[in-house]
This record gives sequence, structure tokens and C-alpha cells, in this order.
Amino acid sequence: MKEIFRNELKKLSPYKPGKPIQDVQKEYGLNKVYKLASNENPLGCSPKVKKALIKCMDNIHLYPDGNATLLKKKISDLTEIPVNRILPSSGLDEMIDLVAKTFINKGDEVIISDNTFIRYMDTTKIMGGVPVVIPLRKDFSFDLEKMLEKINNKTKLIWICNPNNPTGTMISRKELINFVKQVPKDIVIAYDEAYKEFATDKNFPHNSIELLSNHPNIIIMRTLSKAYGLASFRIGYAIASEEIIENLNKVRPAFNVSTFAQAAAIAALDDQAFIQKTIQNNNKGKEYLYKEFDKMNLFYIPTQSNHIWVNIKKNSEEIFKNLQKKGIIIRPMKGTNIRVSIGLPQENEFLVQCLKEELNLCV
Amino acid sequence: MKEIFRNELKKLSPYKPGKPIQDVQKEYGLNKVYKLASNENPLGCSPKVKKALIKCMDNIHLYPDGNATLLKKKISDLTEIPVNRILPSSGLDEMIDLVAKTFINKGDEVIISDNTFIRYMDTTKIMGGVPVVIPLRKDFSFDLEKMLEKINNKTKLIWICNPNNPTGTMISRKELINFVKQVPKDIVIAYDEAYKEFATDKNFPHNSIELLSNHPNIIIMRTLSKAYGLASFRIGYAIASEEIIENLNKVRPAFNVSTFAQAAAIAALDDQAFIQKTIQNNNKGKEYLYKEFDKMNLFYIPTQSNHIWVNIKKNSEEIFKNLQKKGIIIRPMKGTNIRVSIGLPQENEFLVQCLKEELNLCV
Repeated sequence: MKEIFRNELKKLSPYKPGKPIQDVQKEYGLNKVYKLASNENPLGCSPKVKKALIKCMDNIHLYPDGNATLLKKKISDLTEIPVNRILPSSGLDEMIDLVAKTFINKGDEVIISDNTFIRYMDTTKIMGGVPVVIPLRKDFSFDLEKMLEKINNKTKLIWICNPNNPTGTMISRKELINFVKQVPKDIVIAYDEAYKEFATDKNFPHNSIELLSNHPNIIIMRTLSKAYGLASFRIGYAIASEEIIENLNKVRPAFNVSTFAQAAAIAALDDQAFIQKTIQNNNKGKEYLYKEFDKMNLFYIPTQSNHIWVNIKKNSEEIFKNLQKKGIIIRPMKGTNIRVSIGLPQENEFLVQCLKEELNLCV
Repeated sequence: MKEIFRNELKKLSPYKPGKPIQDVQKEYGLNKVYKLASNENPLGCSPKVKKALIKCMDNIHLYPDGNATLLKKKISDLTEIPVNRILPSSGLDEMIDLVAKTFINKGDEVIISDNTFIRYMDTTKIMGGVPVVIPLRKDFSFDLEKMLEKINNKTKLIWICNPNNPTGTMISRKELINFVKQVPKDIVIAYDEAYKEFATDKNFPHNSIELLSNHPNIIIMRTLSKAYGLASFRIGYAIASEEIIENLNKVRPAFNVSTFAQAAAIAALDDQAFIQKTIQNNNKGKEYLYKEFDKMNLFYIPTQSNHIWVNIKKNSEEIFKNLQKKGIIIRPMKGTNIRVSIGLPQENEFLVQCLKEELNLCV
């Protein structure tokens, strides 16, 4: 039956499921497993969310509002962007897929950085796009000049992640403005700011929406999975021109965002105090980990996000397995690099302790 | 910016949002609005579901299990199909999309019945497939002979809905076996049995899984949005060959099914007594509506589902609007036809009363 599958799928790897935390606990007889692998919010989510969910319990059997009317209104109130330029999705994973289906034809060139969110590459390949992969600069940031150089008349779309996952590096406001000015208007810039809330650098483009008025080819993508702590629900959204939103809407399944996700998102967006607490915890954890990594003489990339890229000088897959046995899950990257999410103080401390043991340093 | 969108999207209509019930209530000053438009379960869902959801409240900030390990195990236990031949999705809307992305190349012919679930057509067009539309037989059932006649070396996939939405007609076990035997093995049969639980005809193919051993080109698609009453969550699943599931898995976003949806589905599948109650209510409502439609001299198609296709002899859009004002939402179809979901006794009675008023019959 080989020939029945689309050719594009041959270039994709089959999904490798991770183990549920419960299975890791059972396998190694652990009472507690810390997960610093998926950049989730260690503080959980706003307490307002649970209250909002209880109210949904009587409507489980009804389809969600396919227009996400109240959620769009909430986002509109916060961003001052009209509702017809806002589109919620089932996590940014789905939004990335909608973007690919809206713009990428077979053979279109799509510019992607090396070492960025994997889903850009997968959805590009699924649609038959030709990925043009740009290595990171030596300082691990996006090489925007090289991206501009690669633009030709086949280029259709550019994926940008700022701050970048997994490196935690950022593109400054000045760099970004300079970049988008040089991208022709018929090339789409899919601008993913999933981690924007964690960026502390004063040059970070916190108000990316300002770019839209002169650059209607930008799609701003945001998630509530990270700082807002709603990863379990799958909820993100895009802000773009009315025309782009109308076309994304054409490829979207009508009831893509569940009732609970819509309610949770509205409640979470209402609690900005929780976001402030989240950022404080992240900053505190970041300073602690920097200090400890320095003491351990480990190279890391200063981060604008809630995760840190560290070179642990040993095979990352091996360290991943050994740390898992001790009750801590991190994300192995290429070679000797790992990505760790910034957790609660006790999680960060346990990570440092385990890493010291693994690297045969004084505990 | 017109040229930046894929050509395929030009053939798609923009999404038309329906009004949330609350908005309809407010607009017409109604205390209560009955929704018989979306084939939802009027009994709600199993009480076991709410209990399962409460347990998820502490894990809102964590990503779902991307492998849906426990849910797959539950489905495997019920179906006796191994877990590597099962794939949950965010509603069947997403599964239909995954199927299209896995098989349909630009230019592939895809056989679709007229008057069936709209999403087959949309996803086919999005992937650049060429829909080959087969009219229904005079008795409103799928014309399987005509479908077989249209098969040629460009044919890639056939969408089948049994019982069919919106007509409620069925394909018998004998017809189905005869049909799949004649479909070449390199053509995929996407077999959607979203409404199977409601089928009462003894010739309905309740055990469609039996077909898989001789026909590995069949994908069986099921939902928990209908009889199981979980429409708000978006949860369905496919059963197919290991190879097909592996390929669907390649195009699937890793965390497509939310934590709450997974937990709700496991609890709902555990309560078969609730499904029996649901079927009883549906059968009772069906007999009542048949009797009343007969009295009103209205043509309807006997249904194997939880919805009935009725010809109300007046413009359906007009009737839709007038019924909405009275506090009942139905689905207008082409011309003078409407589709009504079978509700609770009081909902069915109110529908009949409103229809009589609209059609100027004695109330």
C-alpha cells in the first residue's frame, strides 16, 4: 500500500510519544517527578480559570461557539485590535498548520531558521513547501541578514520565533523593524511570540502590533500555553490583517477551540497579576540558574524566555536518561546541549543538584 | 495582496458564524431557547464525565499526554483493536483534515456524495483534490453503484458517512461489504460512523471493524460528540491499519487532544448505560416526530440517526428565522428542507407546535 500516502510524508519522522509522568514515576519507583522539559508554567494557572471552568460543566454536550465571540472580544479589548483581525486556534500548533495551509503551495520556498520550533518545518513539508534553512549566528540569534539574502521570487513565507525556542535569544525592536521593512509585502512573515511575556530586555519588541499598520503581511501569533499556564487546553491566537484572518478562517475547522479552552482563556487574560507573579518567579529562577551554571563552568545562552539552553559537555540523550531516573525531565538537544525550563525554586535547586551529580561535581 | 493566498482557497466560502444561544435569547427577549440544530445529545453527557474533569483541574498548566496513552488503551479494550491501530483526534473535524493531508495530492480525484457532511468537501478542496460529486439515489441513500462507476486511476479517496448526515439514511452491512470488495486496495475509504449508536435497523453494519482484516484501505472514524455528549471538547478517533495510523500520526500536531477531552472520553466510554438511555430517548422522540409529521402531511426521510430531514414545503431559511424568534433553532437545508435534531420530549413537542404555527395548521 506504500504508494497511497502523499510523497511529502516520506520526509517526515513518525511521532515519538514521550512517557506520561505517571509512567516515569512507576518505572523508576519515584515519589515525585519534576518536569522541566516543556516550558510549562510552574505556578500553574490563574485561580480564576478553575472558577470559569465550573460554569462550563453544564454545557459539555453542546458544540463550542465556533466564532469564539467572547474570547475575541476579550482579546480585542486588551489589544485594541478589532475582532475581525483576531483568530483563536487550538494551540499555536494548529495556527501554524492553518498558516501553512493558507499560504504554502507545493514548491514554494519557505525560510526557516535552524534551531527553532520544530513545527514550522513539519507543516512546511506537509504542504510541499521547500524549506530554506538559515543557520543561527555565532551568538545563537536569528541571522536576519542571511534570511533577507535568501529571498527570491519563489519565497512565500518566513517563520520567525521571538524570543526563540529553544535558544531563548531575541530579535530587538530595531532589528525587527529593519527586517520587516526589507521583506516584500507579498511574502508572509509568521511571527511567533509564544514566549514574549518572559522577555526582560528593554529592546525586546513588546508592542509588535505597531508593525501591522505598515506591514499587512505580518501574522502575529500568541499562545496561552506558556505564561498563562493553559497548556492542557490548546489555546492560542493570531492577529493579522482582515484579509489574512478571513483566509485563515476558510481553512479552520468550524469548532476548533473547545468551550473549556475559550472560557479558560478569557479568565486567564483577566488576571494580569498572575502574569506578573509568573515573570517574577522566572526572573528569580533565571538568576539562580545563571549563577549555578557559572559556578559549574557550564556554557549557557542568556535567555529572554522561560527556558535556558545549556551545554552540559556530555551526551545529552544520556544525561536526559540519567536525570529522568533521578526524577527530573529535561529536553535533550543536539550533541551536548540541553534545554531546561525555569521552574520553582525547589525544582531549579534539584536540577542543579542532579546535574552536579551527573557531571561529577561537588554536590 | 490577493496573490499571496493559495489558489485552492478561492473555492472555499468564508466561515459564517452562527449566533451563540445567549445572543439569540437577548435579541428576541426569550427565556429559553431550544437548540435542535447540531445533533447534540439532549440528555447531556454521563455524570461520570464531570467527576473525571475535576481530577484534571490540577494539571491545567501541563501539556496533554501527546500519545493519549490511557484513552487509546480504553478504546483498545472496548474494540479489541491494538493501540497502534487507534488514533484520537480533536473531533472528527480534525481527523477529516488529517486524512486529507495524508492522502490527497493536488489533482487527485476524491469521490463524495451530494448532501453529506460538508467538511469532506472543504478539506478535499484545501488539499487541491478534485471532488467527484455523486447525487443521492431517489430514496436519499448513497449511490454506491455510481460511486464505483466513477473510480478511475486518478481516484484516491472515497468519503462515506453511515448513517449519513444530514439525510439519516444508511448503507446496510450487505451493501457495504459488496461495495468495499469492489474498491481497489490503493483507494482509501474514509468511513465516518459518527452517528452509528443511533442506528436501529437490524441490517446496519454495527461491527464495521470486521471489514478491516480484508480491507486495510478502510479508515473507520468515530466521534464522542454525538451519543456520548462531548461536543464541547472536540474528541473523536480513527481505527485503521498500523501503516495508515503511522502516517496520520506524522501529520498530526503532537498535542492535538486536550487533557480534559482525553479524561472526558475515558469516563464517557465507561458509561454504556448512559448510551442506552440516549438511544431510548432518541427512539421515543423519533416515533413521536414521525407520527406528528404524518399528521401534518409532511414528507420526511426515516432516520437511522438522531436527526430527521423534513420537507416543510416553505422556504427553509425563512422557517429557520421564524422558528428562531419563537425560541427554537433548527438547521435550514436546500430549498424547502430542514434538518431537526431529535430532542427531549418537551423540545420535540415545542418544535411540532412551532412548525404547526408556521405552516398555519391547527395547534
